[in-house]
Amino acid sequence: MNLNALLDAAFEEDLGPGDLATESTIDPFAVGRAELLAKQDMIVCGHEVAEKVLSKSANLYGGAVKYEILVPDGTRVKSGTILAKVSGSMRGILVGERISLNLLMRMCGIATWTATYVDGLGDNITLRVADTRKTTPLWRSLEKYAVTCGGGRNHRMGLYDACMLKDNHITAVGSLPKAVAKAREKNHHLVRIQVECSDLEQVAEAVTTDVDAVLLDNMDNETMAKAIATIRETRPRMVIEASGNITPERIPSLAKLGLDVVSAGGLIHQARWVDLSLKVRR
Amino acid sequence: MNLNALLDAAFEEDLGPGDLATESTIDPFAVGRAELLAKQDMIVCGHEVAEKVLSKSANLYGGAVKYEILVPDGTRVKSGTILAKVSGSMRGILVGERISLNLLMRMCGIATWTATYVDGLGDNITLRVADTRKTTPLWRSLEKYAVTCGGGRNHRMGLYDACMLKDNHITAVGSLPKAVAKAREKNHHLVRIQVECSDLEQVAEAVTTDVDAVLLDNMDNETMAKAIATIRETRPRMVIEASGNITPERIPSLAKLGLDVVSAGGLIHQARWVDLSLKVRR
Amino acid sequence: MNLNALLDAAFEEDLGPGDLATESTIDPFAVGRAELLAKQDMIVCGHEVAEKVLSKSANLYGGAVKYEILVPDGTRVKSGTILAKVSGSMRGILVGERISLNLLMRMCGIATWTATYVDGLGDNITLRVADTRKTTPLWRSLEKYAVTCGGGRNHRMGLYDACMLKDNHITAVGSLPKAVAKAREKNHHLVRIQVECSDLEQVAEAVTTDVDAVLLDNMDNETMAKAIATIRETRPRMVIEASGNITPERIPSLAKLGLDVVSAGGLIHQARWVDLSLKVRR
Amino acid sequence: MNLNALLDAAFEEDLGPGDLATESTIDPFAVGRAELLAKQDMIVCGHEVAEKVLSKSANLYGGAVKYEILVPDGTRVKSGTILAKVSGSMRGILVGERISLNLLMRMCGIATWTATYVDGLGDNITLRVADTRKTTPLWRSLEKYAVTCGGGRNHRMGLYDACMLKDNHITAVGSLPKAVAKAREKNHHLVRIQVECSDLEQVAEAVTTDVDAVLLDNMDNETMAKAIATIRETRPRMVIEASGNITPERIPSLAKLGLDVVSAGGLIHQARWVDLSLKVRR
Amino acid sequence: MNLNALLDAAFEEDLGPGDLATESTIDPFAVGRAELLAKQDMIVCGHEVAEKVLSKSANLYGGAVKYEILVPDGTRVKSGTILAKVSGSMRGILVGERISLNLLMRMCGIATWTATYVDGLGDNITLRVADTRKTTPLWRSLEKYAVTCGGGRNHRMGLYDACMLKDNHITAVGSLPKAVAKAREKNHHLVRIQVECSDLEQVAEAVTTDVDAVLLDNMDNETMAKAIATIRETRPRMVIEASGNITPERIPSLAKLGLDVVSAGGLIHQARWVDLSLKVRR
Amino acid sequence: MNLNALLDAAFEEDLGPGDLATESTIDPFAVGRAELLAKQDMIVCGHEVAEKVLSKSANLYGGAVKYEILVPDGTRVKSGTILAKVSGSMRGILVGERISLNLLMRMCGIATWTATYVDGLGDNITLRVADTRKTTPLWRSLEKYAVTCGGGRNHRMGLYDACMLKDNHITAVGSLPKAVAKAREKNHHLVRIQVECSDLEQVAEAVTTDVDAVLLDNMDNETMAKAIATIRETRPRMVIEASGNITPERIPSLAKLGLDVVSAGGLIHQARWVDLSLKVRR
Repeated sequence: MNLNALLDAAFEEDLGPGDLATESTIDPFAVGRAELLAKQDMIVCGHEVAEKVLSKSANLYGGAVKYEILVPDGTRVKSGTILAKVSGSMRGILVGERISLNLLMRMCGIATWTATYVDGLGDNITLRVADTRKTTPLWRSLEKYAVTCGGGRNHRMGLYDACMLKDNHITAVGSLPKAVAKAREKNHHLVRIQVECSDLEQVAEAVTTDVDAVLLDNMDNETMAKAIATIRETRPRMVIEASGNITPERIPSLAKLGLDVVSAGGLIHQARWVDLSLKVRR
Repeated sequence: MNLNALLDAAFEEDLGPGDLATESTIDPFAVGRAELLAKQDMIVCGHEVAEKVLSKSANLYGGAVKYEILVPDGTRVKSGTILAKVSGSMRGILVGERISLNLLMRMCGIATWTATYVDGLGDNITLRVADTRKTTPLWRSLEKYAVTCGGGRNHRMGLYDACMLKDNHITAVGSLPKAVAKAREKNHHLVRIQVECSDLEQVAEAVTTDVDAVLLDNMDNETMAKAIATIRETRPRMVIEASGNITPERIPSLAKLGLDVVSAGGLIHQARWVDLSLKVRR
Repeated sequence: MNLNALLDAAFEEDLGPGDLATESTIDPFAVGRAELLAKQDMIVCGHEVAEKVLSKSANLYGGAVKYEILVPDGTRVKSGTILAKVSGSMRGILVGERISLNLLMRMCGIATWTATYVDGLGDNITLRVADTRKTTPLWRSLEKYAVTCGGGRNHRMGLYDACMLKDNHITAVGSLPKAVAKAREKNHHLVRIQVECSDLEQVAEAVTTDVDAVLLDNMDNETMAKAIATIRETRPRMVIEASGNITPERIPSLAKLGLDVVSAGGLIHQARWVDLSLKVRR
Repeated sequence: MNLNALLDAAFEEDLGPGDLATESTIDPFAVGRAELLAKQDMIVCGHEVAEKVLSKSANLYGGAVKYEILVPDGTRVKSGTILAKVSGSMRGILVGERISLNLLMRMCGIATWTATYVDGLGDNITLRVADTRKTTPLWRSLEKYAVTCGGGRNHRMGLYDACMLKDNHITAVGSLPKAVAKAREKNHHLVRIQVECSDLEQVAEAVTTDVDAVLLDNMDNETMAKAIATIRETRPRMVIEASGNITPERIPSLAKLGLDVVSAGGLIHQARWVDLSLKVRR
Repeated sequence: MNLNALLDAAFEEDLGPGDLATESTIDPFAVGRAELLAKQDMIVCGHEVAEKVLSKSANLYGGAVKYEILVPDGTRVKSGTILAKVSGSMRGILVGERISLNLLMRMCGIATWTATYVDGLGDNITLRVADTRKTTPLWRSLEKYAVTCGGGRNHRMGLYDACMLKDNHITAVGSLPKAVAKAREKNHHLVRIQVECSDLEQVAEAVTTDVDAVLLDNMDNETMAKAIATIRETRPRMVIEASGNITPERIPSLAKLGLDVVSAGGLIHQARWVDLSLKVRR
Repeated sequence: MNLNALLDAAFEEDLGPGDLATESTIDPFAVGRAELLAKQDMIVCGHEVAEKVLSKSANLYGGAVKYEILVPDGTRVKSGTILAKVSGSMRGILVGERISLNLLMRMCGIATWTATYVDGLGDNITLRVADTRKTTPLWRSLEKYAVTCGGGRNHRMGLYDACMLKDNHITAVGSLPKAVAKAREKNHHLVRIQVECSDLEQVAEAVTTDVDAVLLDNMDNETMAKAIATIRETRPRMVIEASGNITPERIPSLAKLGLDVVSAGGLIHQARWVDLSLKVRR
């Protein structure tokens, strides 16, 4: 379902058959203006989708809105900053207000929270801090975009664009090498295969297989250092990723280990909404 | 869009054209079992949707799953509790794992967080602690259900099932009494009208109109007490609701004021996901 | 399903894979003009949807139409009046002719028929003559709009925007007060509740409950007068509605009783189509 | 759009996000029974769609209904007859009541009204009394089915399954023979072509063309008799249809003229709903 | 499903959640140009759909393309001819390249192959060489259009726009005359009925029925000549069609028999794709 | 769009609003049986989809079919072999006949034709003969499945599951190494990147980049041998694929070069339908 359809569904959910307050009090052709205001410090994210929401809303009433961006996505701002000015169909603005804020508040929240992890990288410019598939169903694209506004990187988009063999797959198949062999045989020749390893034994198994990448899951830093050494010895081009219990505080120490990627679901699922308002001006 | 369609779209997002890992390693007709495990203290919420997700997933592969609930929704559990047992199509379990957890982790998170507000009510059994329209687009029903699992109450579902005149409407129309009069004239005779008041002056205006309910917005407790007294004097059946800056800590003092409803978006948007896993057992 | 989708489905039904007559005889880019003619006395209703139909039709053939309204919706006209002029894509006009007339003839019919009820109100300007949920499935919005063109008022839109407890609910629950109490407890605090009363006993029960409105069902005028007196005594703000066996002839006597609303399904379901034509002019 | 999708949309329209009355007062798993009662004399029509509506409704609440037909479609019944018994999910019955009745009342109305035309045929068993494309958009199949329950016959389903050249096509092309020639050349070899003739001159033109059927439009009986004689002389297999100003009273005289088909939009668009109720029984 | 929806689905199939190559290497707003080149001799067909594909593709990236036709549909060209020039959004061109070529290569293939049949007609200008319902599901319209570009004619579009009684129907009903009688009674009066005859006995039966057209199936030329003579004797207006084992080589002899139509599935299903490329120019 | 929706659309295309022949002649509840017969030598492919088509068809008429497979997919059979027996709803069989055959004839055709390539591999068991993205839009899955029934292998499914940089990308970016570098930087860490090389110069460039696979496009065997030697020297794990002008005749010589994959669009787009019939038996 593309963004357009998702937003239609969002209006179906919130507006349904009509806005009893707005449609009864505001003239169909009334116009006005409003300001999008940051009510706390944050990193800005979501202008494009907010603009789409408000345009769609205005369009429902045969009108239009102009959305003027004052501070672009990815910028760090102080509480009290006006982020955008909106003008046009008053019905459109009032009806689209809640949906646009519900998306903006969440996206700014994720961008702001992601930055607390990325800040820990210091001068390590090659290590990627990436999100995971732990996202709110249907909003993965927007949430992953918010991660990039906070300086993070994206992992695979879904189950279809990479072959990651996790503990559950290995348990179900019976052994790590067997799982890798099956995956290599059945997939087409342009698929990268990654395998999750929870201890050094599995790392040792992994390097003997035709695998392209390894995920070190829930290891402490010391174990990880050993795993990385083992891998680099025989498979210098292998992609090495770490995940599990990744907090902002832990990033500086991870940045020194020689990893390619650190991934954390918390970039998205531990982020809280920040406070924004869209106030009509006289 | 009903729940069924939302879940279809969630699979379209995450599974897309196919799970490269599961489909290449797991036999189409393999069966197995897994356990849903609470990895921290929480209030349980979301079994019904998790079961739907896993059934849908299994169905995609021509199989079925049995989802056995061990601890029902609304129960407070300790970390380490097994909440449900799942058995059946192994492909179904592995492919549905992430989507079901992404919903469960969020819903348990909201239920758990809502309870921190509701606990503050003490022995006040008539005051409702309610959510708002600040919800994740498309998931409002599930999030509002999670609020009830945590002991909270639901506010209106959208813009269509009640007429709430907010500050932006009043600004756009020009005055509070004029907004109420227009709303009453244009709406059918079974619509309740509520008006947002930000100070005592507006409360005084509101009680002179044909309004059914008042929202006291962002007032301190002392101002609220005065507002309530003013209203009850002339309009004893009026519904009185308070909102704005509602935290768990503030609930006990609000519970003493004689309000009908306290509403807070934070029940939902300040809740973080809790940790759950779905592990395959040999 | 919004109007746009309904009209698409109407073309799917009538046009299907193509118009064998028009597509074989009319050049794709031919243009022409036609007139919408009232072939009997009527109240006009439906220009907006007719224009949408013809635009959609023209658009299917890569063309456009101009729809010029000569007599606006809500006007009473004599047989022989030209209501609109249409010009543009000849294929568009011929293919959209039937669907636009099928909607216009029905809508003008409802508006015209509704006026025979409303005319009976005389100088009572506060009593609302309203429709009901007895509408043609999928066309409720347009039929309710036609009612307003004839001077009528709309009742609730569906089951979701008011809580009306009917005889079947009371039978199923066991008693009127129990039904009201359940409805009040389970619904959010901005829902109005109405209860249907078929005799004075039920009216007496209703006024003791926390109900906002009463529906006097199938009562004669004398009984209704007593019911109204009973209600106004203790619940002056209660909304009082009458329904059942409402004919145009009965409206004048009902207008004297002190009711707030009279509702009748017949506004819509006893209306017959009026006669209109859309003739191509050379 | 198939019937299933139309009914889904009908529930979307009437039920929307939920039935505030039924869902708050009736237990999810409560069961009960109800009777479908004819409240005036009528021809029965619509059991199949009513059953689908109630099943769909019950299904929305995880239940089922049993719909027992007591008097089948096409039967003439007296007021007071019980037509069907329904039992099962009480929520399903209450929520589906209005949509099922809205369809049944209309369909029984059309069947009953159509019979007043067909009764005029007397012992003429070959003349078809047929409907037209003047039907309520989206409900053509059901309305045409109701016509057959009243003893009428169906005309073409839409613009795609026959080539009927009407006055507007002839006007646009410039002449009747030219229109027929174009239609014959452009259509595939299994298309029947009919041409509308409004006077004897056009009839004389029509018989010289490669046309399969003629529509005598708005002629009086005398003119029609002449037209039929002209046609039968040279084109004995030609299909002859009459339309325009067809009332039940006129059918007996038309039945003597030697026509193949008489068609009238009024079978459907002049039919009023008949009265039915679905009452819950204790 | 209209062409627009089919193309959307084609992008969903090929592009899915995104083009990893194009989106990572080409700037969103980059523009460029490309040429559509015939890499073998062919008849051109498909410009309109190719333009739609490329426009849709460009539109996905917020851009547009200009598609300039150099050689119109239906033209015979030599290998090496440039058929069209495309300019605009580079992402749009690269992402739409494959889908547009997949349609063009197939359509040009059908047009080119159909011409080998039509060429055999010589100076017989009334015999139609027609396609059948043996088409690739969902692409029937485009394939039938390609047939006309090669000089062929179209047969019925589907099961709904003509009544063709085939051997399986006759077997199931029990006899040819019984099948025709049933079809005539049940269908509306503007349906043409055709019956398939596999030998002269069936032809003799067919001419005694109220049938409009006959299909001579799998007969040799000599038998066909006899069948045609039998039919023309009593039913001069009957449409006569031949099908079964129709090859380009056989057309000249069939053109001499006095048939109205020769139909062959092979026009479409024996056609191979021709070679085309869409190359970006610097 | 999943297979179910594609088949629904196929019925919408072919059946549309109804089968005039079958519905008028065959009783709704009639049952019967039919046989699927190979009318030439072929490899069988498509039972599963044929069964779905016939089930869907029967289901449209409230019936069911039993589809008994006599010869499974992937088997080489002689002309005259009965491949399956179908029994059940006669309407279902007759209405679904054409769609099921249109899919089966194409799929068997592709499987049969693919085998002429695969046969050329001799005892080389590691070289994959793969399809490409040159498939009929919307039917890629079924066509790729048919390739596997003929012994071929599948390439990537679309633009989303691998990053293949083709000549047009390189032209647009300006140089091969620059294109690879951009693709590596922008894509997530589990994407494999392949680059198309049209001469040895490009091969030399490719091995210096961080690319995972190379496509040798339109090279003769001698040039290919040099390219393979160059690559294997420095990048032993690189995947090497050849494409362009691949015919069945050329496979044996290619099988000796040390390639990993040979891909050819012709497996699918040069395949012609084979002849099958579904005949009703008395």
